[in-house]
Amino acid sequence: MSEAIIQTEVVVVGAGPAGLFQLFQLGLQGIACHLVEALPHAGGQCAELYPHKPIYDIPGIPACTGRELAAQLQEQLRPFPIEWHWGQTVQSLASLDDGRVELRTQQGLCLVARAVVLALGVGAFTPRPLKLEGVDALLNRQVFMQSHDRSAVLAQRKVVVYGGDEEAVARLLELANLPLPQRPAQLMLLHRRDVFKGSDVQLAQLQQLREANAVQVCIGQLQSLNRNEGGHLSDLGVLGADGTVFSLPLDVLLVYQGISPRLGTLEQWGLAMQQKALVVDPARFSTSLPGVYAIGDMASYPGKRKLIVCAFHEATLAAFAIAESLQQAPVLLQYTTTSTRLLQRLGRLPTHD
Amino acid sequence: MSEAIIQTEVVVVGAGPAGLFQLFQLGLQGIACHLVEALPHAGGQCAELYPHKPIYDIPGIPACTGRELAAQLQEQLRPFPIEWHWGQTVQSLASLDDGRVELRTQQGLCLVARAVVLALGVGAFTPRPLKLEGVDALLNRQVFMQSHDRSAVLAQRKVVVYGGDEEAVARLLELANLPLPQRPAQLMLLHRRDVFKGSDVQLAQLQQLREANAVQVCIGQLQSLNRNEGGHLSDLGVLGADGTVFSLPLDVLLVYQGISPRLGTLEQWGLAMQQKALVVDPARFSTSLPGVYAIGDMASYPGKRKLIVCAFHEATLAAFAIAESLQQAPVLLQYTTTSTRLLQRLGRLPTHD
Ligand SMILES: Cc1cc2nc3c(=O)[nH]c(=O)nc-3n(C[C@H](O)[C@H](O)[C@H](O)COP(=O)(O)OP(=O)(O)OC[C@H]3O[C@@H](n4cnc5c(N)ncnc54)[C@H](O)[C@@H]3O)c2cc1C
Ligand SMILES: Cc1cc2nc3c(=O)[nH]c(=O)nc-3n(C[C@H](O)[C@H](O)[C@H](O)COP(=O)(O)OP(=O)(O)OC[C@H]3O[C@@H](n4cnc5c(N)ncnc54)[C@H](O)[C@@H]3O)c2cc1C
Repeated sequence: MSEAIIQTEVVVVGAGPAGLFQLFQLGLQGIACHLVEALPHAGGQCAELYPHKPIYDIPGIPACTGRELAAQLQEQLRPFPIEWHWGQTVQSLASLDDGRVELRTQQGLCLVARAVVLALGVGAFTPRPLKLEGVDALLNRQVFMQSHDRSAVLAQRKVVVYGGDEEAVARLLELANLPLPQRPAQLMLLHRRDVFKGSDVQLAQLQQLREANAVQVCIGQLQSLNRNEGGHLSDLGVLGADGTVFSLPLDVLLVYQGISPRLGTLEQWGLAMQQKALVVDPARFSTSLPGVYAIGDMASYPGKRKLIVCAFHEATLAAFAIAESLQQAPVLLQYTTTSTRLLQRLGRLPTHD
Repeated sequence: MSEAIIQTEVVVVGAGPAGLFQLFQLGLQGIACHLVEALPHAGGQCAELYPHKPIYDIPGIPACTGRELAAQLQEQLRPFPIEWHWGQTVQSLASLDDGRVELRTQQGLCLVARAVVLALGVGAFTPRPLKLEGVDALLNRQVFMQSHDRSAVLAQRKVVVYGGDEEAVARLLELANLPLPQRPAQLMLLHRRDVFKGSDVQLAQLQQLREANAVQVCIGQLQSLNRNEGGHLSDLGVLGADGTVFSLPLDVLLVYQGISPRLGTLEQWGLAMQQKALVVDPARFSTSLPGVYAIGDMASYPGKRKLIVCAFHEATLAAFAIAESLQQAPVLLQYTTTSTRLLQRLGRLPTHD
């Protein structure tokens, strides 16, 4: 298989608030960008860890939830032509002889760029793996991991959601509330205890669905993925509370066992680090490797505070430093309120080419 | 006259976006603040220089005008008990023997604080002075300078607005549109040429008012403030286009000759400067004088860009540095989403004292 290599000016890794605003600032500088993100969606910690909690210290926004902030940041960079690579986890980074930087992902993507901005936060958000025999062959066919299950076809299928936290309950309710043609034929919630997390509203809804028999709750621990002669997943082996193993027939398994950030191979990329963060020059946000920049929670410099407001500033100065390095010339400050060039890039003024 | 000295933890000078967000971040740290601002209102350059222009690069806010940003920043710091000193221009700063810092204003205020944050932008916004004999005695009685004229009683008076730019026109229209009891009895616009600045809508409105005789336009240059026997301003001496001087009777003069930022005495405060900006340590935003911090457009450090997004970050790190210096202990990071203490300070959770 010949490998496709993507060549571009700048790659931003991580679509948390830092990476999103980095794309905006690079867009203002007129620089073409690709974005690589381990999750299938944007928002980083804001979207994964506190989507519904209000944040009060984003300047000029007295209150907004994590999810709202992520949505606003995405809305803001809509004028810019960004290429998005979702569900791609960068696992290696290397300097090429011509000074460019090469990135490779676990999923097989290779990108070569004149500059790379690492906006890795606290690491790549990764679903807790299911350590059962045969899972790899079924992945993204009949077994889907949390946050990566949007491509699963579930209509009219027997679906098991495996988990008990708020995300598991929310996904189950979402499926139960689908209109009939899209709804699974059978919907089961498998969890080791009959205790579920969620808001009062969510838990009341779950209770109603159970009482109406629209959802079955099954208590036990998943022990095996059993396949039929055609190699298809046919049923789960579940260890019940009474110590016996029973079989749970299904078509699709959605694994909701939690998601957490992982540093992965970062420490082997040859970048100067300090307390698990990348050491940067706070005038440019450049790391120890030429062409590689770092911002947000993963960047470390004197006085650093892991706050979103700081990531925004870091992204701004990194964009200026990258623009100066690509152009080999100083970049003067322009205001979005008054600069014709910036207003054109923002799509607020027509361009005359 | 014995002088009142105000003692407090922190004084912030300047109510531009930098100073406003500084007050917010100090509020989160639980620190009591006073604010001193030369103008009678907040917003700095955003409010003075581009109140109606949209800004596109405030993170999470795809578009907002200068005035809207200033209003949102003020709304955000509403939970905190700030003491505001409007219309006060700081003209000296000195270190006291006990390590505190003393500030004095042109208008006679004296403040002593454990820390001072200078968020001076491009200088104190100051109306262009009227260099005519006797103006001082009439100031804030019958003569009011641009942006400082909100206390003027204008109802049923003969009012002259002196100026021709957008602010002069806007103020005139505002007065002409007041309900009858508050409206001036007579409204004149005095300008050296019959050419006025403003939006098409504003200029059309002005034209209508002129045709309806609701506003008189008088072309000429102001030469003298003439007083009656009681010492009151009775009329203006105006040099007309034909070279003769005529008299314009009035009760109140509003001077709209432009407003511009002035550094004033800053260079004599003993702070290290570089290209008319204050040199700061970007880990703490401290200046060369202990207890004195600087942020925003007036602060200089490697990589500095005079953008609002950078000022927000600077305010945040300065607040941590000040809190650590006041407490003589490290201040741990807390999130507004999750910290009970911060949520209490923000008025989002009840306090139990
Ligand atoms: C509960 C909680 C409450 C908080 N409240 C506040 C608050 O009120 N105010 C505030 O300012 N901050 C708050 N924070 C902190 C704030 O969320 C972080 O500072 C911010 O999310 C950091 O942004 P980031 O973009 O640097 O990283 P992240 O948000 O962590 O995003 C990094 C992204 O990069 C991706 N990624 C990482 N490594 C790779 C890789 N190798 N390949 C591909 N993709 C990768 C990750 O999957 C992730 O999506 C809070 C945090 C938490 C956990
Ligand atoms: C036309 C224009 C468009 C712009 N567009 C953008 C944009 O799109 N994006 C962006 O990020 N930035 C933009 N800027 C820049 C932005 O406005 C400044 O970076 C920002 O206002 C700086 O904030 P500040 O609080 O440091 O200073 P300022 O806004 O200048 O505020 C300083 C305040 O301090 C007061 N002050 C100063 N000295 C004293 C004293 N001795 N005593 C008492 N008070 C004092 C002043 O009166 C003033 O109110 C623009 C600027 C202009 C002029």
